[in-house]
Amino acid sequence: MSEYKSDIPDITQIGDEGIRYRGTMMDDLIGPFGFARSLGLLITGKRPSETQARMIDALLVSAADHGEKAPSACITISAASARASLGASVAAGLLAVGDVHGGAARQCAAMLLEAGKEKDLRELLRRRLESEKRIPGFGHRIYREKDPRATLLLQLAAELGLAGRCCGLLQEVERLLPELVGKTLVLNIDGAHGAILADLGWEPSMCEALFIVARSAGLCAHALEDFSSRRPLQFISELQGGR
Amino acid sequence: MSEYKSDIPDITQIGDEGIRYRGTMMDDLIGPFGFARSLGLLITGKRPSETQARMIDALLVSAADHGEKAPSACITISAASARASLGASVAAGLLAVGDVHGGAARQCAAMLLEAGKEKDLRELLRRRLESEKRIPGFGHRIYREKDPRATLLLQLAAELGLAGRCCGLLQEVERLLPELVGKTLVLNIDGAHGAILADLGWEPSMCEALFIVARSAGLCAHALEDFSSRRPLQFISELQGGR
Amino acid sequence: MSEYKSDIPDITQIGDEGIRYRGTMMDDLIGPFGFARSLGLLITGKRPSETQARMIDALLVSAADHGEKAPSACITISAASARASLGASVAAGLLAVGDVHGGAARQCAAMLLEAGKEKDLRELLRRRLESEKRIPGFGHRIYREKDPRATLLLQLAAELGLAGRCCGLLQEVERLLPELVGKTLVLNIDGAHGAILADLGWEPSMCEALFIVARSAGLCAHALEDFSSRRPLQFISELQGGR
Amino acid sequence: MSEYKSDIPDITQIGDEGIRYRGTMMDDLIGPFGFARSLGLLITGKRPSETQARMIDALLVSAADHGEKAPSACITISAASARASLGASVAAGLLAVGDVHGGAARQCAAMLLEAGKEKDLRELLRRRLESEKRIPGFGHRIYREKDPRATLLLQLAAELGLAGRCCGLLQEVERLLPELVGKTLVLNIDGAHGAILADLGWEPSMCEALFIVARSAGLCAHALEDFSSRRPLQFISELQGGR
Repeated sequence: MSEYKSDIPDITQIGDEGIRYRGTMMDDLIGPFGFARSLGLLITGKRPSETQARMIDALLVSAADHGEKAPSACITISAASARASLGASVAAGLLAVGDVHGGAARQCAAMLLEAGKEKDLRELLRRRLESEKRIPGFGHRIYREKDPRATLLLQLAAELGLAGRCCGLLQEVERLLPELVGKTLVLNIDGAHGAILADLGWEPSMCEALFIVARSAGLCAHALEDFSSRRPLQFISELQGGR
Repeated sequence: MSEYKSDIPDITQIGDEGIRYRGTMMDDLIGPFGFARSLGLLITGKRPSETQARMIDALLVSAADHGEKAPSACITISAASARASLGASVAAGLLAVGDVHGGAARQCAAMLLEAGKEKDLRELLRRRLESEKRIPGFGHRIYREKDPRATLLLQLAAELGLAGRCCGLLQEVERLLPELVGKTLVLNIDGAHGAILADLGWEPSMCEALFIVARSAGLCAHALEDFSSRRPLQFISELQGGR
Repeated sequence: MSEYKSDIPDITQIGDEGIRYRGTMMDDLIGPFGFARSLGLLITGKRPSETQARMIDALLVSAADHGEKAPSACITISAASARASLGASVAAGLLAVGDVHGGAARQCAAMLLEAGKEKDLRELLRRRLESEKRIPGFGHRIYREKDPRATLLLQLAAELGLAGRCCGLLQEVERLLPELVGKTLVLNIDGAHGAILADLGWEPSMCEALFIVARSAGLCAHALEDFSSRRPLQFISELQGGR
Repeated sequence: MSEYKSDIPDITQIGDEGIRYRGTMMDDLIGPFGFARSLGLLITGKRPSETQARMIDALLVSAADHGEKAPSACITISAASARASLGASVAAGLLAVGDVHGGAARQCAAMLLEAGKEKDLRELLRRRLESEKRIPGFGHRIYREKDPRATLLLQLAAELGLAGRCCGLLQEVERLLPELVGKTLVLNIDGAHGAILADLGWEPSMCEALFIVARSAGLCAHALEDFSSRRPLQFISELQGGR
């Protein structure tokens, strides 16, 4: 029932000799891909291999920002525009994260894990399209031909030997979809995140954590830019000018 | 007046061929310390060197979590306990970030940059102690002898040749303080963050951004743990049991 | 499908001669129970009668606060303790509002409206107890005999002639429950809010709005008290002393 | 130093016989202007007179909403558009409350209380205009001739015999300003709130509490409307269409 088994060490232990994340001394985590390694360790409770840490780092890079039109960025800048503190501005943006923004990787991972247990992928997709009208991990507001981030990440996963069952199923879904929906749908970054993280052994709910950590970087950048380059309420007034 | 000069490229540019952060293609950012490099680039507008990216990554590792008693973690777990979404739980914790939690690196960086322009450091500290009763970057609730994170980070900065004027001033402050306050005060993680980031050329306000991004990792871990291992409201009830 | 019919006026119209809420001039809303009247009008789109406004005002009074142990209050005070702004402190507390805190009135209203369409209330309760183990609007952590707020509100609704089908069903549920669960469960404030608001014609989702508005009063009081009477982080440290 | 004197009863006391706000039984608070009375009692610690409760209720009505272009409403609807919960949507909007949105009543009250101690109001205004370029409580983005809400509230305060020293000073400021700034500035709702609440004995910081409670009504209405009448992300996309 729980993804946290009783044999997983505490998130953080504080001692005079130093700090441990999940039982590992902080000193031992520092080095190439150190933050990605720490994130994987903190979230899943297990230390990622070097190759896995490299992949997690790339996933973080890919989701760090997507411009000020992303819902979370727009809300963060609006709050910064009203001169909320930096923490409160980022917090405002994170309130937009969920099923319709940043949550598709979680949904896609769950779908692929479910698909892995069924015989007939086409039938599973057909039922899902009927009930929910969409397939998580496919389609994009801006990218019509391909999402360059998804391509980059899936290629890296293959090169690192990390693309497993779920990445395979994701590509199978990509192949089946045009016939089922009557048009080509772009395999997007959320699809790549969901499949790759599922292949790394992350639970679906953990995919959203990676998005939150990555995107907080972009949200900070947008808030700081507003503080230093626009007048109070300028952004939000200009935004509303169009309505 | 503004830290964003007009010659700094947009935070994120979206094109069919790929995404650019501050003018650099995402593909080019991936690799060792990729997320740290991207964070530095997004926040400051300038691409960190390899050595700088290594340092930023270590700073991120060091601030990723500090246990569930940290104010932000306690609030995040309380919100998770009431079954707020993951994004809302992390957001709740980030509302605690500011002058009294996570903001001391910013204050310390500002103090060191100011100290760099004055002749008499002892006099500056004396005035500050008189007006504010404390020196940012010094003292810790738990660590009484030394903050192992600060030691680790300042040593790494020295090894990487990144310890400059501000790291030097920080150690000078450490040397002067006992006489001024009548007791030894531990040089803490915030002091190390402030001095090192100031030596990397980060503006003081940017130090808080690094803390927010790093700590969002720990906040996610704490929220996910509560979701999977405790009953709704269990954490908050147990917390209140002590009052 | 939507509770907002196309013939309902805009939430707020701003004109040189004055402001209108849902088409009614602000001047016309001021008077006894003016804020309760405005709230009902803003939320439902329809102007409450004088009697209804009186009832809404009493519901607001009853939910304005429930002490610092309520999850939202505990989080608000923790955020205030870290010296978040007043708005951010209240916001932090509101992030705890949902299914497990403040949401039972919504759930109870939905259940009663569903019950109103079925023949066999006992059977509906049996099924619900089987699937969800609890009946919204019943049971309380503190009150074991009766929730004085529920008694007060249901009596007022009866006196004002506002207790209709849903209040009747609520009392029927109270009568049936002991046999079904094997013990007496207190009819609580959420049950009273859900039934009374449903009888006033409010949609279930609107019940949560009334709770949010009412409780924001208590959250402000708690945050202001912390700002003026405790040191930064004092509350949160004392809270954790018990763990 | 603190506005909470030790002889003020606890915010809320919970007992078997009923709930007390600041020592007063809840039953005793219900009636005309009951919520306004409770709010005044909870925030200030002192029970407002009937006339004062009537005034507080009118202040709540006047600030309950100001359309979807108000910064807090815009952020709340954006969060609702991403399908944040109702509580999280309102929370997002409240993060915009502070010095540049909703905080001018507090600033105006503080200025009037300061002015009450000085001899030369003109000189105080001149200094303030020099350092901050604006006078809190004056000027409005939309209203150019007069803010109808301010007129309404100040007239009511006068009728109820509640307009005291601060209301007088506010009108004195209104008279002096055109000469000092070279144009007429509208006396706005924040000015009226600040002066009236200061005359009721509220501390400046408490003015922001009244705004938060009042405006949470409008924020709930906007969020619920978005949930029921627009598609996910529709509002935020349309908003950005203008940029």
